[in-house]
Amino acid sequence: MLDQDRLFPVEPALRDLARGLYDDIRDLPIVSPHGHTDPRWFAEDQPFPDPAQLFVTPDHYVFRMLCSQGVALTDLGVPRADGGPSETDGRRIWRLFARHYHLLRGTPSRLWLDHSFHHVFGIDRRLGPDTADWYYDHIADCLSRPEFRPRALYERFNIEVIATTEPATDDLRWHRMIRDSGWRGRVVTAYRPDGVIDPEMAGFAGNVALMGQQTGFDTATWAGYLDAHRARRAYFKEFGATSSDHGHPSARTEDLPQAEAAALFQKALRGACSAGEADAFRGQMLTEMARMSLEDGLVLQIHPGARRNHSDPVMAMFGRDKGFDIPGPTDYVAALRPLLNAVGMRPDLTVILFTLDETSYARELAPLAGVYPCLRLGPPWWFYDSPEGMRRFREMTTETAGFYNTVGFNDDTRAFCSIPARHDVARRVDCAFLATLVATGRLDADEAPELAHELTYGLVKRAYNL
Amino acid sequence: MLDQDRLFPVEPALRDLARGLYDDIRDLPIVSPHGHTDPRWFAEDQPFPDPAQLFVTPDHYVFRMLCSQGVALTDLGVPRADGGPSETDGRRIWRLFARHYHLLRGTPSRLWLDHSFHHVFGIDRRLGPDTADWYYDHIADCLSRPEFRPRALYERFNIEVIATTEPATDDLRWHRMIRDSGWRGRVVTAYRPDGVIDPEMAGFAGNVALMGQQTGFDTATWAGYLDAHRARRAYFKEFGATSSDHGHPSARTEDLPQAEAAALFQKALRGACSAGEADAFRGQMLTEMARMSLEDGLVLQIHPGARRNHSDPVMAMFGRDKGFDIPGPTDYVAALRPLLNAVGMRPDLTVILFTLDETSYARELAPLAGVYPCLRLGPPWWFYDSPEGMRRFREMTTETAGFYNTVGFNDDTRAFCSIPARHDVARRVDCAFLATLVATGRLDADEAPELAHELTYGLVKRAYNL
Amino acid sequence: MLDQDRLFPVEPALRDLARGLYDDIRDLPIVSPHGHTDPRWFAEDQPFPDPAQLFVTPDHYVFRMLCSQGVALTDLGVPRADGGPSETDGRRIWRLFARHYHLLRGTPSRLWLDHSFHHVFGIDRRLGPDTADWYYDHIADCLSRPEFRPRALYERFNIEVIATTEPATDDLRWHRMIRDSGWRGRVVTAYRPDGVIDPEMAGFAGNVALMGQQTGFDTATWAGYLDAHRARRAYFKEFGATSSDHGHPSARTEDLPQAEAAALFQKALRGACSAGEADAFRGQMLTEMARMSLEDGLVLQIHPGARRNHSDPVMAMFGRDKGFDIPGPTDYVAALRPLLNAVGMRPDLTVILFTLDETSYARELAPLAGVYPCLRLGPPWWFYDSPEGMRRFREMTTETAGFYNTVGFNDDTRAFCSIPARHDVARRVDCAFLATLVATGRLDADEAPELAHELTYGLVKRAYNL
Repeated sequence: MLDQDRLFPVEPALRDLARGLYDDIRDLPIVSPHGHTDPRWFAEDQPFPDPAQLFVTPDHYVFRMLCSQGVALTDLGVPRADGGPSETDGRRIWRLFARHYHLLRGTPSRLWLDHSFHHVFGIDRRLGPDTADWYYDHIADCLSRPEFRPRALYERFNIEVIATTEPATDDLRWHRMIRDSGWRGRVVTAYRPDGVIDPEMAGFAGNVALMGQQTGFDTATWAGYLDAHRARRAYFKEFGATSSDHGHPSARTEDLPQAEAAALFQKALRGACSAGEADAFRGQMLTEMARMSLEDGLVLQIHPGARRNHSDPVMAMFGRDKGFDIPGPTDYVAALRPLLNAVGMRPDLTVILFTLDETSYARELAPLAGVYPCLRLGPPWWFYDSPEGMRRFREMTTETAGFYNTVGFNDDTRAFCSIPARHDVARRVDCAFLATLVATGRLDADEAPELAHELTYGLVKRAYNL
Repeated sequence: MLDQDRLFPVEPALRDLARGLYDDIRDLPIVSPHGHTDPRWFAEDQPFPDPAQLFVTPDHYVFRMLCSQGVALTDLGVPRADGGPSETDGRRIWRLFARHYHLLRGTPSRLWLDHSFHHVFGIDRRLGPDTADWYYDHIADCLSRPEFRPRALYERFNIEVIATTEPATDDLRWHRMIRDSGWRGRVVTAYRPDGVIDPEMAGFAGNVALMGQQTGFDTATWAGYLDAHRARRAYFKEFGATSSDHGHPSARTEDLPQAEAAALFQKALRGACSAGEADAFRGQMLTEMARMSLEDGLVLQIHPGARRNHSDPVMAMFGRDKGFDIPGPTDYVAALRPLLNAVGMRPDLTVILFTLDETSYARELAPLAGVYPCLRLGPPWWFYDSPEGMRRFREMTTETAGFYNTVGFNDDTRAFCSIPARHDVARRVDCAFLATLVATGRLDADEAPELAHELTYGLVKRAYNL
Repeated sequence: MLDQDRLFPVEPALRDLARGLYDDIRDLPIVSPHGHTDPRWFAEDQPFPDPAQLFVTPDHYVFRMLCSQGVALTDLGVPRADGGPSETDGRRIWRLFARHYHLLRGTPSRLWLDHSFHHVFGIDRRLGPDTADWYYDHIADCLSRPEFRPRALYERFNIEVIATTEPATDDLRWHRMIRDSGWRGRVVTAYRPDGVIDPEMAGFAGNVALMGQQTGFDTATWAGYLDAHRARRAYFKEFGATSSDHGHPSARTEDLPQAEAAALFQKALRGACSAGEADAFRGQMLTEMARMSLEDGLVLQIHPGARRNHSDPVMAMFGRDKGFDIPGPTDYVAALRPLLNAVGMRPDLTVILFTLDETSYARELAPLAGVYPCLRLGPPWWFYDSPEGMRRFREMTTETAGFYNTVGFNDDTRAFCSIPARHDVARRVDCAFLATLVATGRLDADEAPELAHELTYGLVKRAYNL
């Protein structure tokens, strides 16, 4: 069902070279520094529910493709935000999915799903209308067994450490429960303060007030607000956090005089920011976060460029994160300048940049990361987390930023079973790229294995302090 | 003269795979849903004039390249808009063309021309100064024979259906004549209303008035104007139209309150629109056209992004469509939002998007088409209708939009003899892409032939209702 | 140490084809029409100083990469603009460089350096911490010998002609000294008037005044200022100049009424231009320079798109050209229109366009150069002067602009020893591209050698009138 040489170059000698590199690193443990698995899984270690709820309903890569061909999201069991009905029969959802499985031909989802079906569930036939029920029964049966519970899968997947992402005001109860359980799996959190940084986010003022209660600082003042961030970051560090993460519409940063920043914060609390002022405030907070990173060592991740919730009717019916976030052009050069002028030359700071705009790879991101000591390039993200996306990333960034300004792979997923598949794709594509460099005289044969190890394991461990 | 394995991958096993896929679909009939051949050819079925008027004078791909190296357009017989003289001796034009044929090395025009020379005219030697006269005599001789008349070529080219493009106010006399002739060729029209939608087009108000006379609706009112569109669309449908086509500077859409739209229309009729208002009116009309498509089933094609008539002196001397249209950056995400919020979730609507800005493929177009039920991606267009352009299209769109959100190939040409060549290029490049997916384990071997058939025949038939 | 087949395709038959093309042109003389070597080297013919000053301290490609990983520029001997200390011990700098040499893996700098070490200095082992001292001693020893002096290397590198770049107000003393020396090497200057054209450049008014003194024209007036340019261009032509070069933030051009241009010039002299007015003035001067090119035949080169001196602290400590210039999006279509409307259809004018924004290759630059007689595409520049950059250039421009609207290779470097390496990379990548076209039926086998010669030698000689 899976080609053992998938994603390697086709020319036989080059394929051998790539396979040789891959064989050396294929079994390295998974280090997953950024993702969206649910810590509750590992805390409670309950069985996953039915196959549809594991593979279809929560996976926006999958349901967006079916939606694009006219399948209703409600028929796929996507839960509604407006209280309306949605399919709940797992088997019916699964059959609908199977009937449209061909739509995923040529997509990374197809690779991830086939890999999961085969490696996690031992399946050796293709999903389709004819095999839908067999699949459903087989997977459902597996899920009822102890070796398919979250902790067992974590161990079987050879995960060394996995990061989840929690809002700044999260109580981290599941992380506490994991820690208190004595289980030896390493599940760490990451500090995601968008809800207390973005004045345009629903509930902003309430979130800021809650952060005040949680920390004892007066978050009605700028100074207290910053102290509350420091306290929450420290709290997250107690649960293993080594990074913060920021999902902003743009990469804009600011380094305003503190009095101006304080005034902007007051306006944000009153809900009185214009769109431009809200953007400026978010930008100011990236620089503040960078300064805190210099104090506490958290790595700063910037994920900019998604135009969120593009469809009003879908937002009204289903809410956020339903596959209707669309990328757009993203500037980094002017946008990052205030932050970089403030702290960019500090080698003790790490800022990891992601993009949904590939035009920035060679034009902006590689030139920036290839000179500023604090900057590193995050791996291809979201729509680019794919064989072609990864290949273009290496081709467009390596010549200017090299390998050592990159940080290994992020799976960035809530689809737990896809994690080994995603890391495997990255490992294969990287080995194919390295083999090509060797075969074309751009890298010595003895350097490639060392780099394969770095791209898989070394860089991510060091960049994220894991 | 033509490499039988052209455009296939070079690695032998992969080449075999691609050739195998191609052999299965190479002889499928041509479905040409969008193009600019002249319906008069098929109506009157007269011989084409001389070789220069067939291959040089009307082909802006060809004469723009010669122009770029200092050949005067007048010497190539390009007709002047200002009444000045232009070369009319076909043989002199042909010799000039032959002397510069090497300039086309590495371009798709070279591929199309060689293919036409060989397959249409049975030529087995390369065009150049030495062979110019031989070529001219040979082609001229062919053109005088009945088997080189338009209908005979249509049949020989194995065309199943071909669409032309006519302005909204065209009387479609040639289409009527074709229909009345009893000939079994299927030549359909397409509704191109730019002249009655774009307030900045010369003659806009007059065109709108003419549409009123043609339909009996009072096109001095917004409601009458919309009704006149409905009537003209119905008229075009009588002559086989299954689509409308819109060539706008941008992809901007609007969904204004009807009273505002009506006021804007009045301003447009008075010639009083600012540039911004004209753009808004065009944008409003795309949404109105989409709503009419929901009523009458016409597919909506959007061709945005050309900066037309870049050179003032060329425009003054030669007029429009002389190779001086240059692409620029084109936004789709914000631009299409009003239309998509209005009707984007309707699976009974088809909107086909084209681009001249490749940066939008992976960043905007694939993410949009990969989620909105109404959206489909048009094939690589104009400067991208080429082997490298087609390869990049597949590489940059498939992983996010899949294959089923694309619509097969458009030749989009007025160069009749190049139609088989252009479709052949697309078929070869698609088979090469599919073969690569199979050889790298991204597609099963039994799925590729089915997809090759879909990309060549199935998708275009269904997307365009042909 | 160097793979003899580096940068060729991997598939054996295709590799043979590429190697065959390369063998034919590998020994053609180097024509270097644009670069930044120091004419003083050739004038005085003194030995180069130590290895660090040859390879590390002046090479911003090298020190920016080390800087990006936390190495202080001062430790690399980069001279300070603020008078502070910087390392001066060549051996210490070299050891630091050697310890970080692995950072350059996968970059063109690594290719250039290894090529220089091997071909210029006969080295057969890799640079690293273990070989640092051996390398230093070996290169230092070489540099002390006569056959490593600039003129000897010029001859050994098989350079036919090399252009340097001097400011408009330079006295060209070193060029005079070269000419007077009777040495047969051909070192020509190029006219780089940014300092007297850009109102935002430090010293603008003083430079303009100096140009007045140099020429006897009253540069306090617009007419005198233009005449002074004419005189300086004529002076540069005496020292072999065949081109002017313009490094502007954007590609903006203007064609203002002369009275407006004159008023803007006065404002510029007074230092009273807004940012927009300064940009307009630079744009006006591009059109003026193009008009002068029609008089005196100098080729006009436009190098737009770098956001210079991105880091304020680095600018304050080290000054300009320290690796902190970052590209950004660059428009050509609207920007060049005024110039092109004024003189774009003149076949006796040559304007060579460069870009740091690859998105413009296929979207804007190839369509423009593929139709305007005056336009040519410069080779991949700066961050794109690399194997992948060159490959993308050919893939994205050839289908629309062909080969004959390109101008061969520029090394654009002050790193003298890297010149043969850089030209060799271009020759290999071009031969690989041509071989691929032949193997995929897009070019006849007998056309490829002719094109290889053109891309290496013919086009650059003709485009630059060298």
